Amino acid sequence: MPNLYTLTTDFGPGEYVGAMKGALLSVDPDATIIDIDHAIRPQDVRHGAYVLLTAVPHFPFAVHIGVVDPGVGTTRRALVVVCEGALLVGPDNGLLVPVARRLGLKEARAITNRKLMAKDVSSTFHGRDVFAPVAAHLLTGTKVKDVGPVVRDFVDLDFGTPKQAADGLEGVVLTTDRFGNIITNIPRASVEKAWKVGGPIHVALGGYEATLPLVSTYGEAAAGQFLATFSSSGFLEIARREGNAAFQLHLSPGLPVVLRKA
Amino acid sequence: MPNLYTLTTDFGPGEYVGAMKGALLSVDPDATIIDIDHAIRPQDVRHGAYVLLTAVPHFPFAVHIGVVDPGVGTTRRALVVVCEGALLVGPDNGLLVPVARRLGLKEARAITNRKLMAKDVSSTFHGRDVFAPVAAHLLTGTKVKDVGPVVRDFVDLDFGTPKQAADGLEGVVLTTDRFGNIITNIPRASVEKAWKVGGPIHVALGGYEATLPLVSTYGEAAAGQFLATFSSSGFLEIARREGNAAFQLHLSPGLPVVLRKA
Amino acid sequence: MPNLYTLTTDFGPGEYVGAMKGALLSVDPDATIIDIDHAIRPQDVRHGAYVLLTAVPHFPFAVHIGVVDPGVGTTRRALVVVCEGALLVGPDNGLLVPVARRLGLKEARAITNRKLMAKDVSSTFHGRDVFAPVAAHLLTGTKVKDVGPVVRDFVDLDFGTPKQAADGLEGVVLTTDRFGNIITNIPRASVEKAWKVGGPIHVALGGYEATLPLVSTYGEAAAGQFLATFSSSGFLEIARREGNAAFQLHLSPGLPVVLRKA
Repeated sequence: MPNLYTLTTDFGPGEYVGAMKGALLSVDPDATIIDIDHAIRPQDVRHGAYVLLTAVPHFPFAVHIGVVDPGVGTTRRALVVVCEGALLVGPDNGLLVPVARRLGLKEARAITNRKLMAKDVSSTFHGRDVFAPVAAHLLTGTKVKDVGPVVRDFVDLDFGTPKQAADGLEGVVLTTDRFGNIITNIPRASVEKAWKVGGPIHVALGGYEATLPLVSTYGEAAAGQFLATFSSSGFLEIARREGNAAFQLHLSPGLPVVLRKA
Repeated sequence: MPNLYTLTTDFGPGEYVGAMKGALLSVDPDATIIDIDHAIRPQDVRHGAYVLLTAVPHFPFAVHIGVVDPGVGTTRRALVVVCEGALLVGPDNGLLVPVARRLGLKEARAITNRKLMAKDVSSTFHGRDVFAPVAAHLLTGTKVKDVGPVVRDFVDLDFGTPKQAADGLEGVVLTTDRFGNIITNIPRASVEKAWKVGGPIHVALGGYEATLPLVSTYGEAAAGQFLATFSSSGFLEIARREGNAAFQLHLSPGLPVVLRKA
Repeated sequence: MPNLYTLTTDFGPGEYVGAMKGALLSVDPDATIIDIDHAIRPQDVRHGAYVLLTAVPHFPFAVHIGVVDPGVGTTRRALVVVCEGALLVGPDNGLLVPVARRLGLKEARAITNRKLMAKDVSSTFHGRDVFAPVAAHLLTGTKVKDVGPVVRDFVDLDFGTPKQAADGLEGVVLTTDRFGNIITNIPRASVEKAWKVGGPIHVALGGYEATLPLVSTYGEAAAGQFLATFSSSGFLEIARREGNAAFQLHLSPGLPVVLRKA
């Protein structure tokens, strides 16, 4: 079994990702490094948390490093989170929490052991100087309990619970993807309890309001038609067949989404 | 020899590529995964086919996964294509065909064996639930004949044959690259049969028409000069030395390219 | 220990990176290939040199391939540069020099041994046909002295030495990053000699002039405040806490930066 690590950051292309990989390989030359995503919207912790939530559960045992870290250089803590089948390493700002809860969070520890970090820790680049070397130590002999003390008051984050109303549900837009699909925070199960797949659903989001078909696959809509379906991550998604719904509706994360009986 | 896999998709950066890599590694933890390109223009099957055609022949034996899949969730089939020195996995929409023919296509099989797929196959993400796990099974003990039946009526795709006219050749723009080079579907051999490298060639494309030098390397043109040469993939290319020809000429894929004697 | 290779190019996403990886793996199927950056600004040798300078020193022993190569197809030479703890492979245009000097440059050799290249060397794609196969040969048995003769007149490149004035220092903008941080060519040591961290520093760049706090971490400034600090690569950096300084100041590489006593 290889020593598997994944990286999810808001670094974009460039020298930062490279330096971080170098720091990791310097501790563990046998590392297998998998890029999940380096295009998290800069400093958007919720976007990073969503990508980790969506991608990480599909991996076999690995150490997953997440770096979306507006508080780097302040007193925010660095964490190792122990989960069922995974270790997570990153800042204590909520980034790691949604995926940790989905996997099964066992314990969180603050990284305080200086011996596991770079000799000089820069105040602007903990990805290279703290998270990457600590992650690499975890698969090359260091025990989790040696990184630092258990913490229970870590920063929490969730994607919100849709509000239940007499005649519907109210949630928010979580993110949009490259195809223009609009992913909400409304779980599949909540939708299926109140609406019939194959039937109509009334959706209001942004200034847009319409009755859409709730389908199980894009192919059930006509080309150009808007539709409601379920994202591969298990949330309600608004899409446009062979079109770009997010662009068309001028949508951005955080906007409210209201579902009603059609 | 490592278990080598490559990925070519239109997923862009983000959680989809990550989830697909996780699904692959869950079946084959020893996988070596190489990213070819995740920036195929969304749902542009011809662009994906061109990237596969250009990159795949340079690899040693590998399983190449291609996902540009506007028909996901419909009845389009999923394929494994057996070639000289490579296995290709992806949708039956022509994406895999040009590279398969270049390598030497031996047989195509429809993927029907449910045991090789994820337990729950989502209707929107076959990259994660079908193509990645099937690919991983192919290098970890599953025989090609066990994925499903041979199919002969797969969707075909080629880049068109340039039309021969009395005084020249007519083709189309295949794609443009990051440097603004304009790559046509006119094969090097057709050009060399009728024009002399080092001499002039008359080119009409978009609203632009000019006599250009047909050179073997950019360095033979002056800075800023337009030129005709051959792309590293073996097609006629229109470029501008130290400039961006595609931007300058407002060019996009599909536009006609006409070559005449100068 | 794995056979470790890194790639830094201006190819962007697309078939070129894929073909280069294939060419490398065809010579060394056991290669571990690490992407450093493929988004170097097209043909911007200084940008590429900066990324290599910043990322490469963090790696354990590896062969680092750099391709930013406006002179491909001309008579510019191809080089292998032997350094402390690293081999560098790329064009003789200065790209490899700053990082080589930082690591400790031992010798440079021109690549002339045709046996180490692709059978047919295209005139537009030496990344695939020269640099990748030569790099792979260097970790699979070929001795450095067999690539070609030592050269001492390689193209040099540095990032300039800031000019010392009676009352300050004058440098230039090296690059800007995804977060809008503006990285100058003024080394940390020069700044620390004349200014006190924690105190004020007067900065003029572009049409913008202000007295900023010189801090050791972003967290010492208020949200929205401009600040001067040190980049993780060891240069003076102008940033804006929770903002994008480069965008705000319309900054681009090459602009002068003048520091004065506040």
